[in-house]
Amino acid sequence: MRITRIIETPLRLESNISNAFVNFSHHTVSLIAIVTDQIVGGKPVIGISFNSIGRYAQSGILKDRMIPRLLAEDPENLLQEDGKLFSPEKISRVALRNEKPGGHGDRAHALAGLELAVWDLNAKLNDEPASHTIARHFGRESAASEVHVYAAGGYYYPGEDLDALRAELARYAGQGFTRFKMKIGGASLDADKQRIDAALEVAGSGTNLAVDANGRFDLDTALQYARALDPYALMWFEEAGDPLDYELNSALAQVYGGALATGENLFSAIDVKNLILFGGMRPGQDVFQMDSGLSYGVTEYARMLHEMESRGFSRKQAFPHGGQLLALHVVAGLGLGGCEVYPSIFQPLGGFGDKDVIVNGKLRVGDAPGFGLETKSALIKKFTELVS
Amino acid sequence: MRITRIIETPLRLESNISNAFVNFSHHTVSLIAIVTDQIVGGKPVIGISFNSIGRYAQSGILKDRMIPRLLAEDPENLLQEDGKLFSPEKISRVALRNEKPGGHGDRAHALAGLELAVWDLNAKLNDEPASHTIARHFGRESAASEVHVYAAGGYYYPGEDLDALRAELARYAGQGFTRFKMKIGGASLDADKQRIDAALEVAGSGTNLAVDANGRFDLDTALQYARALDPYALMWFEEAGDPLDYELNSALAQVYGGALATGENLFSAIDVKNLILFGGMRPGQDVFQMDSGLSYGVTEYARMLHEMESRGFSRKQAFPHGGQLLALHVVAGLGLGGCEVYPSIFQPLGGFGDKDVIVNGKLRVGDAPGFGLETKSALIKKFTELVS
Repeated sequence: MRITRIIETPLRLESNISNAFVNFSHHTVSLIAIVTDQIVGGKPVIGISFNSIGRYAQSGILKDRMIPRLLAEDPENLLQEDGKLFSPEKISRVALRNEKPGGHGDRAHALAGLELAVWDLNAKLNDEPASHTIARHFGRESAASEVHVYAAGGYYYPGEDLDALRAELARYAGQGFTRFKMKIGGASLDADKQRIDAALEVAGSGTNLAVDANGRFDLDTALQYARALDPYALMWFEEAGDPLDYELNSALAQVYGGALATGENLFSAIDVKNLILFGGMRPGQDVFQMDSGLSYGVTEYARMLHEMESRGFSRKQAFPHGGQLLALHVVAGLGLGGCEVYPSIFQPLGGFGDKDVIVNGKLRVGDAPGFGLETKSALIKKFTELVS
Repeated sequence: MRITRIIETPLRLESNISNAFVNFSHHTVSLIAIVTDQIVGGKPVIGISFNSIGRYAQSGILKDRMIPRLLAEDPENLLQEDGKLFSPEKISRVALRNEKPGGHGDRAHALAGLELAVWDLNAKLNDEPASHTIARHFGRESAASEVHVYAAGGYYYPGEDLDALRAELARYAGQGFTRFKMKIGGASLDADKQRIDAALEVAGSGTNLAVDANGRFDLDTALQYARALDPYALMWFEEAGDPLDYELNSALAQVYGGALATGENLFSAIDVKNLILFGGMRPGQDVFQMDSGLSYGVTEYARMLHEMESRGFSRKQAFPHGGQLLALHVVAGLGLGGCEVYPSIFQPLGGFGDKDVIVNGKLRVGDAPGFGLETKSALIKKFTELVS
């Protein structure tokens, strides 16, 4: 069994006019296909994936470094012991050959896309959803059949802010969501408090509403917000400052009684270890948002979970960033707390299958083999073009 | 005044047969040229540089993201206030537009090459060495006219190890070096102690000899080495463990009386802040090896120095990784402790000008405009091909 081709192409995310205040129009993602010599139903088995959402395509690193290393390797060295599946660990090791430690950025996004394609491939070889393959690989009894999801958005709408914000969240509620996340930090604290009050009219209670500062606060502003947000008892307060500023996060944890959330911009297990040791994260309380689709894949994500669990944290505290089918299967397969979704934006990558429906804040994981990207018509069209 | 073209090409480092135990044959570096509309002597003024040594070329990130952002910007917005020089800060900001925080890896190497080319360009517009331009920009009275350098190498030579190691260091001593750095961790601790004893026969005293573990030790091994190395009173003990493992570094600092050195694999000011706050680094003692050529350039390097100096560390504790003309001018311009050089390897990028001579462990900074890459014939040939 061997890989015959690895194909990558950058895809530009579609800009969404109804969310014109957020500029995603320059963001790209790598679509990746791993083609094998295994034939099922007259066609080669192909693993497909992409490197999550929100950073960039990694055509250069993939084509100049990782793909040549994999194609130059003896195919036997890329398989699991029994020779029946590909080995995500071995493939990761070969893809990173001659790479120095440290510098977990674009390289982590590049390998993430590749490694997730291996999971899609293995699941298709097993003819099962990727969540099942992931669960079995990591020694779990079963994958979750449904996953808690929440709707992220809650944008600023200059001039008609409160009404438009309420309308946006009400739209999500109408789609079956019960929990929501909104932006803060783009206005004054007073204006943000008014926005939170407006959002709570839809969310019903603070436990159903998270706020996201997107890393923009310095220490003083973060502390000021923490004190003001505390009485709301929110679902969580997300990325107050620079994602690597552990001193800031630790200071926040001292004054903020609710849950802090961070980690979507940490891309390696050693960074997660540092967040735990020095960032003041609290077992049973704070939320970890690392995204396997940006962080070297599920292999490294499992190491991140080890950093958490060996220090008293629960994997239920993990709510990966991402908001697409890849993250959904990782959450179900590893038994994590839940995952986010940005309803209707980041297309054609964001969200789930065409027929997937949110019911009471939960989503049933589909039965399609692999990550089920084939159940998302606008996306699978792009992959069909890629491998044709 | 405006940029007319930005050109990048990957260059494969020459493998050096006499150092066959280290495989550099797959390493690449981006050569970068910024061409302007300024004409001097009938030719356009061109800034050139590369992204240091030891990581990889960044053709994808440069061509897909950074260069298009710069060429799309209003040229006025890339100049310093007086309009007479390009602004490294503004160019960095535009090159990073729409990039999220965190993930300081390949992206940092990509911008580093670009930003250093701006310094070469500005220095050429001023008709002076880059060290002068850098010193003036950061408010320093003058640039150092000479820089302390040390010879890095000290490889393993299976079968003839001690003799070959002594011969290697003796060759460096013959070239004018008085301080040396050798590899450890590739053999048993006992064998490494024998190697250190052999190296000391050439180095004369522990203060002239550093050891480099290249990040390969776990905590127990690092502590074992620290205790064994302590009596040697070495120049420093470099990169014992993972560069981001602050817990390990801090534990080492508790037991090791000499200087620890690390940082060549940290690529942002926030990582340096964390190393200082959580890694146990000691003012007046330990050594910081961050390399502006891998870390977003001199603009970010100045922020790193601020993290150090605002917490009681001296810039004389900074000995950048790199070992080429770019690092030499940064060290001279910013008044740092010194820099490394890998004599005769990493060609054609490593080392200094053809006529530069080490005298008593020091090197005079040349008078050529910019970084003086034109004084290194094998290298400037590559740039000439690039811009032709």
